[in-house]
Amino acid sequence: MTDLTPIAPLLDEQAIELPSWAFGNSGTRFKVFAQPGVPRDPYEKIADAAQVHRFTGLAPTVALHIPWDKVDDYADLAKHAEDHGVALGTINSNTFQDDDYKLGSVTHSDPRIRQKAIDHHYECIDIMGATGSRDLKIWLADGSNYPGQDDMRGRQDRLADSLQKIYDRIGPEQRLVLEYKFFEPAFYHTDVPDWGTSYVQVAALGERAMVCLDTGHHAPGTNIEFIVMQLLRLGRLGSFDFNSRFYADDDLIVGAADPFQLFRILTEVVRGGGYGRDSGVAFMLDQCHNIEDKIPGQIRSVLNVQEMTARALLVDREALAAAQLAGDVLAANGILMDAFQTDVRPGLAAYREAKGLPADPMAAYAASGYAASIVEGRVGGAQAGWGA
Amino acid sequence: MTDLTPIAPLLDEQAIELPSWAFGNSGTRFKVFAQPGVPRDPYEKIADAAQVHRFTGLAPTVALHIPWDKVDDYADLAKHAEDHGVALGTINSNTFQDDDYKLGSVTHSDPRIRQKAIDHHYECIDIMGATGSRDLKIWLADGSNYPGQDDMRGRQDRLADSLQKIYDRIGPEQRLVLEYKFFEPAFYHTDVPDWGTSYVQVAALGERAMVCLDTGHHAPGTNIEFIVMQLLRLGRLGSFDFNSRFYADDDLIVGAADPFQLFRILTEVVRGGGYGRDSGVAFMLDQCHNIEDKIPGQIRSVLNVQEMTARALLVDREALAAAQLAGDVLAANGILMDAFQTDVRPGLAAYREAKGLPADPMAAYAASGYAASIVEGRVGGAQAGWGA
Amino acid sequence: MTDLTPIAPLLDEQAIELPSWAFGNSGTRFKVFAQPGVPRDPYEKIADAAQVHRFTGLAPTVALHIPWDKVDDYADLAKHAEDHGVALGTINSNTFQDDDYKLGSVTHSDPRIRQKAIDHHYECIDIMGATGSRDLKIWLADGSNYPGQDDMRGRQDRLADSLQKIYDRIGPEQRLVLEYKFFEPAFYHTDVPDWGTSYVQVAALGERAMVCLDTGHHAPGTNIEFIVMQLLRLGRLGSFDFNSRFYADDDLIVGAADPFQLFRILTEVVRGGGYGRDSGVAFMLDQCHNIEDKIPGQIRSVLNVQEMTARALLVDREALAAAQLAGDVLAANGILMDAFQTDVRPGLAAYREAKGLPADPMAAYAASGYAASIVEGRVGGAQAGWGA
Amino acid sequence: MTDLTPIAPLLDEQAIELPSWAFGNSGTRFKVFAQPGVPRDPYEKIADAAQVHRFTGLAPTVALHIPWDKVDDYADLAKHAEDHGVALGTINSNTFQDDDYKLGSVTHSDPRIRQKAIDHHYECIDIMGATGSRDLKIWLADGSNYPGQDDMRGRQDRLADSLQKIYDRIGPEQRLVLEYKFFEPAFYHTDVPDWGTSYVQVAALGERAMVCLDTGHHAPGTNIEFIVMQLLRLGRLGSFDFNSRFYADDDLIVGAADPFQLFRILTEVVRGGGYGRDSGVAFMLDQCHNIEDKIPGQIRSVLNVQEMTARALLVDREALAAAQLAGDVLAANGILMDAFQTDVRPGLAAYREAKGLPADPMAAYAASGYAASIVEGRVGGAQAGWGA
Repeated sequence: MTDLTPIAPLLDEQAIELPSWAFGNSGTRFKVFAQPGVPRDPYEKIADAAQVHRFTGLAPTVALHIPWDKVDDYADLAKHAEDHGVALGTINSNTFQDDDYKLGSVTHSDPRIRQKAIDHHYECIDIMGATGSRDLKIWLADGSNYPGQDDMRGRQDRLADSLQKIYDRIGPEQRLVLEYKFFEPAFYHTDVPDWGTSYVQVAALGERAMVCLDTGHHAPGTNIEFIVMQLLRLGRLGSFDFNSRFYADDDLIVGAADPFQLFRILTEVVRGGGYGRDSGVAFMLDQCHNIEDKIPGQIRSVLNVQEMTARALLVDREALAAAQLAGDVLAANGILMDAFQTDVRPGLAAYREAKGLPADPMAAYAASGYAASIVEGRVGGAQAGWGA
Repeated sequence: MTDLTPIAPLLDEQAIELPSWAFGNSGTRFKVFAQPGVPRDPYEKIADAAQVHRFTGLAPTVALHIPWDKVDDYADLAKHAEDHGVALGTINSNTFQDDDYKLGSVTHSDPRIRQKAIDHHYECIDIMGATGSRDLKIWLADGSNYPGQDDMRGRQDRLADSLQKIYDRIGPEQRLVLEYKFFEPAFYHTDVPDWGTSYVQVAALGERAMVCLDTGHHAPGTNIEFIVMQLLRLGRLGSFDFNSRFYADDDLIVGAADPFQLFRILTEVVRGGGYGRDSGVAFMLDQCHNIEDKIPGQIRSVLNVQEMTARALLVDREALAAAQLAGDVLAANGILMDAFQTDVRPGLAAYREAKGLPADPMAAYAASGYAASIVEGRVGGAQAGWGA
Repeated sequence: MTDLTPIAPLLDEQAIELPSWAFGNSGTRFKVFAQPGVPRDPYEKIADAAQVHRFTGLAPTVALHIPWDKVDDYADLAKHAEDHGVALGTINSNTFQDDDYKLGSVTHSDPRIRQKAIDHHYECIDIMGATGSRDLKIWLADGSNYPGQDDMRGRQDRLADSLQKIYDRIGPEQRLVLEYKFFEPAFYHTDVPDWGTSYVQVAALGERAMVCLDTGHHAPGTNIEFIVMQLLRLGRLGSFDFNSRFYADDDLIVGAADPFQLFRILTEVVRGGGYGRDSGVAFMLDQCHNIEDKIPGQIRSVLNVQEMTARALLVDREALAAAQLAGDVLAANGILMDAFQTDVRPGLAAYREAKGLPADPMAAYAASGYAASIVEGRVGGAQAGWGA
Repeated sequence: MTDLTPIAPLLDEQAIELPSWAFGNSGTRFKVFAQPGVPRDPYEKIADAAQVHRFTGLAPTVALHIPWDKVDDYADLAKHAEDHGVALGTINSNTFQDDDYKLGSVTHSDPRIRQKAIDHHYECIDIMGATGSRDLKIWLADGSNYPGQDDMRGRQDRLADSLQKIYDRIGPEQRLVLEYKFFEPAFYHTDVPDWGTSYVQVAALGERAMVCLDTGHHAPGTNIEFIVMQLLRLGRLGSFDFNSRFYADDDLIVGAADPFQLFRILTEVVRGGGYGRDSGVAFMLDQCHNIEDKIPGQIRSVLNVQEMTARALLVDREALAAAQLAGDVLAANGILMDAFQTDVRPGLAAYREAKGLPADPMAAYAASGYAASIVEGRVGGAQAGWGA
């Protein structure tokens, strides 16, 4: 068994934010399969998210999505979270589910619609004040489906203008984090398609504007860890949205499609100073459990991140640097692979037990009876999903 | 103006089937934007589809999707179609919207669910009898999201078994057409991912089993016209689902993303004997007009196919063969490009007028007042969409 | 025939630089097929390039590649070019064919190799002085093949440092243009993989550092015209390397693989102020005529660019803007497609004749006897290729 | 340490054929970096290959490439191999490096060139008789670069005709194995682009015609293990060419780019009966060590295959089948991942030692002094590469 004691203090710093919407129903354009016991309101979502933290100690905060998670009293919601052992985290805006946004939101040529989208972000900022959230995360569905449909340059300029208005409203301890996405739901162009665009937009805003890297939002073959390296170098990597994909933005469990890629990403995070409490890089999940159970799906996800983080922390950096400097291609690659091939699961089980956590969080959750209790208890009412 | 008189008899043979579901609301997993005037039942869908034929003369039949288009009396629906100048066409089955099918339909390991899916196809075959349809088109959402989730080999064997049961039920003048799709809604594997799988499955069934090629269902970079060539060579190209895509299965207007690819596909269709009334190759659209108007979207689509067909028919095949035989790469490519670069629109306008059709179908539809009439007339009731 | 007289003054401004290396032998890693009559030195390359300009009036300058095009007397080479009706243009550096560069050049961890690569650029700058070239174009093969092989962050920092040293040496009327490339010849990572990296590197250098966009250097599905828009918006689009590709960096004739994409790119160039003599955006070809004849291959290429430029100039921008503002998706797309579908070839033939150029440059070149003359005349000696 | 004793008998059956050409110089179209000590003839290539077997016990045979490995006396070459502890294996034909094949070989429209290519295969079959080889492996560079360049259908028909002529010549114990490749060196179309085409071609020939699956020859995102499953189901999986890739046909060390994919492939091989001495499925490497040392590169490669094979053999198939049958997505995926995450390296070291092999073949080779001996000994003469 590989002893993880030397890296235990670093493992202690790991915190992965959960998305409230991962606990509601989700699906594809073809079908949303409902699951029994799914939460019916933000309170129940937080209760479910708290289970993930209870069994793993890895997920102390929950991100909210507005308006999906609107409540009358955010202080009460925060108290509810605290009672369940977690806290409220990032606020995510939504400008893709109102009929007005069919052809765009903050980039729209109609000033009324643009202002409406900006106002929505102002509302999100107000909520951040109430919840004590640090980050306003903006993912835009803005784009077009057909060449000629709209003027990409005009949209880019309006994007800059709208973002400035939003940025000017956030507090001195708050951050604006702009996500990019290669395609979908727009199919010809998206207004923030790549890290370059997100970077030039946030760099124009000010120091508290950052880039969010969603691991499923790239063209096929993209070297994501290179982007991690570059954004850390530029001081603009604000957060991750973790998930995995075989083809498009599949939103599968992080590490499920390409565990080695996740390892490479985390290795670059560690190497570039993006790991740990003071790094300023937030780890989040953004996944859809369309066919698998949602709570254990989230548990599996945070464990995958933890396991790959442990491997990344095990990389023998001195030996690696020496092999790199010597130009020994096979040796350098071999040192990295040694860490990847290490089975950290027994060591992590011991680490968990030492902290009073179950050695096997998946089994412990399964044995807890929680799944049965919510299936029984949540009868009636509309299940939460991606609807506003 | 390029005179199209020489190819007019061939243009006369063009018939493009419309999907009933193109007239209902559709969208992405993020949002379905409703449009005013959208049909509320199969009768209204057919009425809309008939408008496309009225202004273009290109779309004499309408494909139905079961259960979306279930009615009490198919003879009455057929009569309704006839009254509107069109006929009913292909029957499309649906095994992706019932909760039982979450993990598969005809490939499911549970015999009860498999039989339910087979029974659904039997029902479709019954409807084909009532509507006089020739083709049963099967697209399966079957697949898995995670490695290990299911046994791909067992599923493939069960697929063969289920298809045989369905094939054995169709009539001597009917055909089973099996569509393949690279990914979505399953993200790790689909049970019919490529033309090879569709081919080996239908070849095992019998002579009236064919492959359906949806132009949006391939991996990036796939040479689709090669597949057209191969399936025609093997005598198994049953039908096309036309649409276009920049990235995944975007289901945009055919010819919108890559008009040259559409031209190359149609050139190969013509070259391989896949064009015309007796070819056995059915042309269909399968698109989603998520943000553009649906009826003019379909008109634009059939016109795009017609325009590229005209270009394909203009290829100087003798000169091309001579240049190819001479190994003159630039000359051969140039001959193909000459046809592609020809502006056939004036010639097609003249061709239409000679047949009593409007020279500009888009303008004629816009001037017809039909759009306003359905917005006014279709108030109340639930708009049709992808729901059963 | 579409009259191109209104856009003739703009067409007059078109100038497309030819790469000297397009006239030498090239191939794939599997085989370089030699062609008879291929140039044996830079003088013969320029003579061939001059033929392209003679028959098209589109290609007044020739780019050199150092050391492939090293000569003893650059003034003499410039005089030779002038005698043939053309001028010398961009200087391209080469840091990928020396054994020292196996693991990197300007990014190498060994200061000796780094300095050697920097010195090579100093030599190129000296040559620029002798040839009167404005642009130093840098494409780097630097990268790695295996994860862990080298430290990407260290390489990025050394890249910045090396580029600064090079930039500091160029004259006040000269520019440094940095090309990016997704992959190849490095397969795991490249040090300048995307426009974002090229942009942040050149932005750090100074105002005369620009990005070069090679149309074949992107991930599958990338919206290239978006990048054109963005780089023009940022004032950093220095030049194009035109070619086309179906899959990777195929280096086929520009416009051959996806003519509509070329049209969209040029439309965005025109829209963003990147067209014309004073735009600061240089048009270049960078192609490999592996199996087709090289001189007519280049003629075909500049004609393709001219034809798509004409279409881009024909876009009815007022009508387009109105349709966009109205949110009329189909109309806006239709206006763009109207320009694309216009057959500009007859109009361009007339335009050429009015300028004393052959109406059909391909036919005129074929009839000129030049091809036979070089096959006869260039016997003996080593044909030029990609070797130093 | 996971005890591998239960699977040791299966591990004993593993045999991975090495390509002779992996020991010669290779590179990209940009540059071939020569390495000191590289073999100068087939005898030296075999001597190097034998080192891989000596330290791993995994690579008992060496594939030859004709004409690269032509010798005067194949019996003598076989004796040489035997003296070094290995045997000669598959014969690979080469129809891509003769000027005649610029536009095609067995598909060429010129009967003379076609016959030349067929004759080359006859010669290969003669060599197979002399070497005792079972498999004739055919990879064709045939294809085209430009739409219209040639008639794809005519080429496909000629391909069938040529293959039949070749197949008719092989002996009753011999096999024809046809490789497919998505693209390169042809960029518009290849004549055998996908498994479907290879399958329909070999199925038309007879029972001893099989498909070769090169793991680097697919479109981005292709599920390769699905193809493994399908070809095993159809009884036509003849052999693997193992390597890995991030983007195109990068020919990197197998398992280097995506170790999890290699695991999934091998899991499907085992599940489908493709593993072991009597399976009829040949394991081969086909890689290019462009920048890393060649012999240790091959050692690393066969070890990677062995390590992933061990993991695949460790999959708890009963538990997996039960979880699959129960529709427990997370459990089924988890059982597969358990095997993947197991660190088999200590167990394999023990397994090797029990067989009298070095526990760490990489270290043992490095300590052997062989590398220094060939650098010293192989001075003068032309190094072997991809040239005929």
